Amino acid sequence: MNLRLVSRMLGIVAWLLGLTMAFSLPVALPKIGGQSEFESRGFWALAFSIITCVIVGIVLRRLGRGASDILYRKEAMAIVGLSWVLATVLGGIPYYFGEVGFREVEGQVVTMGIVECLFESQSGFSTTGATVLTDIENEDWLPRCILCWRSSTHFLGGLGIIVLFVAVLGQGSAGKALMRAEMPGPSKEGSQERMQHTAWIFAAIYCGLTLVLAVLLYLEGLTVFQAICHAFGTMATGGFSTLNASLGGFNELLPESYKMIEYTVIVFMILAGTNFTLMYLTLIGKPKRLLGDPEWRTYIGIILAATVLVMAIGLVGSGNDFQFGENAPLGEKLETAFRDGLFHVVSILTTTGFGAADFDLWNNLSRAILIGLMFIGGCAGSTGGGMKVIRHILFVKILRREIEHSYHPSVVRHIRISGEAITDPDLARNILLYVSLIALIFAVSWLVLVGIEPDATWVESGHPVSNKLVDSASAIAATLHNIGPGLGIVGATQNYANFTAPSKLLFTFLMMLGRLELFAILVLVLPSFWRTR
Amino acid sequence: MNLRLVSRMLGIVAWLLGLTMAFSLPVALPKIGGQSEFESRGFWALAFSIITCVIVGIVLRRLGRGASDILYRKEAMAIVGLSWVLATVLGGIPYYFGEVGFREVEGQVVTMGIVECLFESQSGFSTTGATVLTDIENEDWLPRCILCWRSSTHFLGGLGIIVLFVAVLGQGSAGKALMRAEMPGPSKEGSQERMQHTAWIFAAIYCGLTLVLAVLLYLEGLTVFQAICHAFGTMATGGFSTLNASLGGFNELLPESYKMIEYTVIVFMILAGTNFTLMYLTLIGKPKRLLGDPEWRTYIGIILAATVLVMAIGLVGSGNDFQFGENAPLGEKLETAFRDGLFHVVSILTTTGFGAADFDLWNNLSRAILIGLMFIGGCAGSTGGGMKVIRHILFVKILRREIEHSYHPSVVRHIRISGEAITDPDLARNILLYVSLIALIFAVSWLVLVGIEPDATWVESGHPVSNKLVDSASAIAATLHNIGPGLGIVGATQNYANFTAPSKLLFTFLMMLGRLELFAILVLVLPSFWRTR
Repeated sequence: MNLRLVSRMLGIVAWLLGLTMAFSLPVALPKIGGQSEFESRGFWALAFSIITCVIVGIVLRRLGRGASDILYRKEAMAIVGLSWVLATVLGGIPYYFGEVGFREVEGQVVTMGIVECLFESQSGFSTTGATVLTDIENEDWLPRCILCWRSSTHFLGGLGIIVLFVAVLGQGSAGKALMRAEMPGPSKEGSQERMQHTAWIFAAIYCGLTLVLAVLLYLEGLTVFQAICHAFGTMATGGFSTLNASLGGFNELLPESYKMIEYTVIVFMILAGTNFTLMYLTLIGKPKRLLGDPEWRTYIGIILAATVLVMAIGLVGSGNDFQFGENAPLGEKLETAFRDGLFHVVSILTTTGFGAADFDLWNNLSRAILIGLMFIGGCAGSTGGGMKVIRHILFVKILRREIEHSYHPSVVRHIRISGEAITDPDLARNILLYVSLIALIFAVSWLVLVGIEPDATWVESGHPVSNKLVDSASAIAATLHNIGPGLGIVGATQNYANFTAPSKLLFTFLMMLGRLELFAILVLVLPSFWRTR
Repeated sequence: MNLRLVSRMLGIVAWLLGLTMAFSLPVALPKIGGQSEFESRGFWALAFSIITCVIVGIVLRRLGRGASDILYRKEAMAIVGLSWVLATVLGGIPYYFGEVGFREVEGQVVTMGIVECLFESQSGFSTTGATVLTDIENEDWLPRCILCWRSSTHFLGGLGIIVLFVAVLGQGSAGKALMRAEMPGPSKEGSQERMQHTAWIFAAIYCGLTLVLAVLLYLEGLTVFQAICHAFGTMATGGFSTLNASLGGFNELLPESYKMIEYTVIVFMILAGTNFTLMYLTLIGKPKRLLGDPEWRTYIGIILAATVLVMAIGLVGSGNDFQFGENAPLGEKLETAFRDGLFHVVSILTTTGFGAADFDLWNNLSRAILIGLMFIGGCAGSTGGGMKVIRHILFVKILRREIEHSYHPSVVRHIRISGEAITDPDLARNILLYVSLIALIFAVSWLVLVGIEPDATWVESGHPVSNKLVDSASAIAATLHNIGPGLGIVGATQNYANFTAPSKLLFTFLMMLGRLELFAILVLVLPSFWRTR
């Protein structure tokens, strides 16, 4: 293991973090974040954090002096995994120095401890959007400049994932299927240049869409600060908001344009969950590639089918699912059901996790459908998390083939995606490995969480203890798949503040595991990864 | 597809069923089943069922006249799958002709419809032990001779699985790992004779142990009828009892010997979940093979670890888990906790599903542990259902290898079981396929069940609707893995009577799917299975 090279690369990550933190400094000035005074506590917390990042960067660069430039697969994996760990630690420092209050116990404000800082930081970088903060609108608890940093971690995390996909995740043996054949970039040149080219294009699309969304939201009435933070949260499929009621909070603040805001965010969430290669191809005038792509068609199909189901069940059933007056005209009822249904289906499927209304009040079947969507996720090559739509498509095709294989052992057939055969012999094993690994991690984490989290957490926060098993399962799914909200105690209007420290660490680990598609983190805990060459 | 041969073999199955039904006829006479009068309704129901079996057998044999004797893999799979379907249908006839009452609605006895008959029959043959009958002690509702047939289906199902394992399930590509190298039988002869020899030996061990257990239970105070029925339920890892309170009912009937009965059943459940090859080797004087077997050691290890956990959590926690007086001496408390904890851990792990106390009153963590055990199951080559311990051992080894593979793609290592390498190249894919298929079936069935079963089922039976999601998940696990009881509405003291017909059919399908290890049933619904040669 070329540890010097790893160290040198991590040094750059530390510097980049410090640089990005600097962009949140101006928010400490009056007015920008909506506050009336200069936030000296937040300002100095950020300043100290930036200095820490710079020093850590210098130390890591020193340790890595004289490293050879040879980058093997192992070093690449170590850099990916460790830079995420490093970012989590450094990114949590502003919360700690800023003495951010995250909840109140018996009239006393409790400030974030190390565990809460790690959780919030990881939730940002992994674009999960789960939070331990119970009142983000309280400027005394949470300075606006640190709130800005919180949303910035989404932006950075989304950018990191898009670039990592090009550099690492899309290079695996199932790469061709996950990645699409036509990557942007000059095809005749070496893969190194092509990869860099692709990464730049993806980054440009990502930044461009974020900017467009921010402008649109600003035009719809949000302040510049709110618009930027929500654009970060949307395009990274993160879900951090600046309001306690998430995006739904604008229903009161901007009742005139609220519907428009909701539809705008829906469209951009769908875009954020779309493969960036296909968006690039659309931009250069090949929209047919997007419209004909089997993964994207399935993705849109799932959105439509789930929305229709949720609408139908909600309207036909008890009728309490959607919030409209009993005497509202039919058209208004349908529109509300469509908008709210679509919003939450898209929010969960793309793993964004924004809330518009409290979907935990929906009927059991609709809630079960949302849990099902959690296990699907966005498209490969997007900022969306989860297992990805393409893995499910391949999984179903492989299952079909393997069942046939059980009575025709001699027949060898390749899996086809839009007619093209995937000849990779490891494809089936890789997909099955991923699915079964997710099942195992989900089951074991659930058991551990039920074990380490006392029943008292439910009692104290007024939730029935009998819901512990299902609430815990949803919390595991919501963090492992980088969604954010789950059911019950971690429902749409709730948060992760009440959990004990060990559970918060478990969630932090799961968010990282899910975001880096398991392997880059799993290898880090394997002793032989560090021992052998 | 050689359909004639399939038909001829199914004819034999029909005849065998009719023959076995005849053994329940004498129970209709007074006294044998504990009743005071001759049960004419039950007697004629059985008699008509026997006649139906004979006629169906004749028709199927006729249809299969002149079939060639060539048995390909496809025909073998079709025979296994279809004979299970046939047995389910024919085995349900006595309940239908017997007009068995299964529940009371507004003072009216409701008799079993076709769906209930199929469910109860499948639950018997698949050795699940889930029931729709709410009062099996009521002789007016359920004649003793039909109760005897109900337990007999366990015996037949267990026998069938033991024989099928030798003939079909153990022959797959992961066969060597699942089956152990040393199968009983003359090793130099052809595999056909060896297989038959093995099957006979397994059947002999199975019948022998059932007989020994029945005698022991009789000596401990059970009637002959009770002893035989419970021996059937235990050795098949089924779980049908003759008492409404399951085995726990003897606590009142036979308070003197109850502890002894519980321990006896524990020992025989453990044996029933043990690989029959290893029991054979122990019988011929090679007990070291059993004690050194990695699967059996893991199996025993899981039992001990789970028991200690359940005991510790139950005693340290609220203390309401186990039923002893508050002032009971410590020794008695420990013994009760040990006995009840061990009983339910073994009952769930071996997929028997007997109940001694209401484990649904246990704390959340202990209940979660039981759900975890549901996904493990007994040893391969036993009557125990579930995923089997050996699959989990191989799964963990494969995961470890594949994670190493992610950074060392060029290294090829074989999986080893007790030092011996398994060279089968398809092993990893097969195990991963099985695990991910179980995960998919579990998830989809859960969604379907939540969708088709109305909330009213929970309301009417007095269970909180908010438990629908977790209760449904446990019901799916309990039927797919052939256990029987789950949590909440299908808890230890509950049953499946309240579910609507579509849900009961879903459970019936899942029981069959799980019992035949998925593939023999999955191929039946694939059109190409029937089309191609």
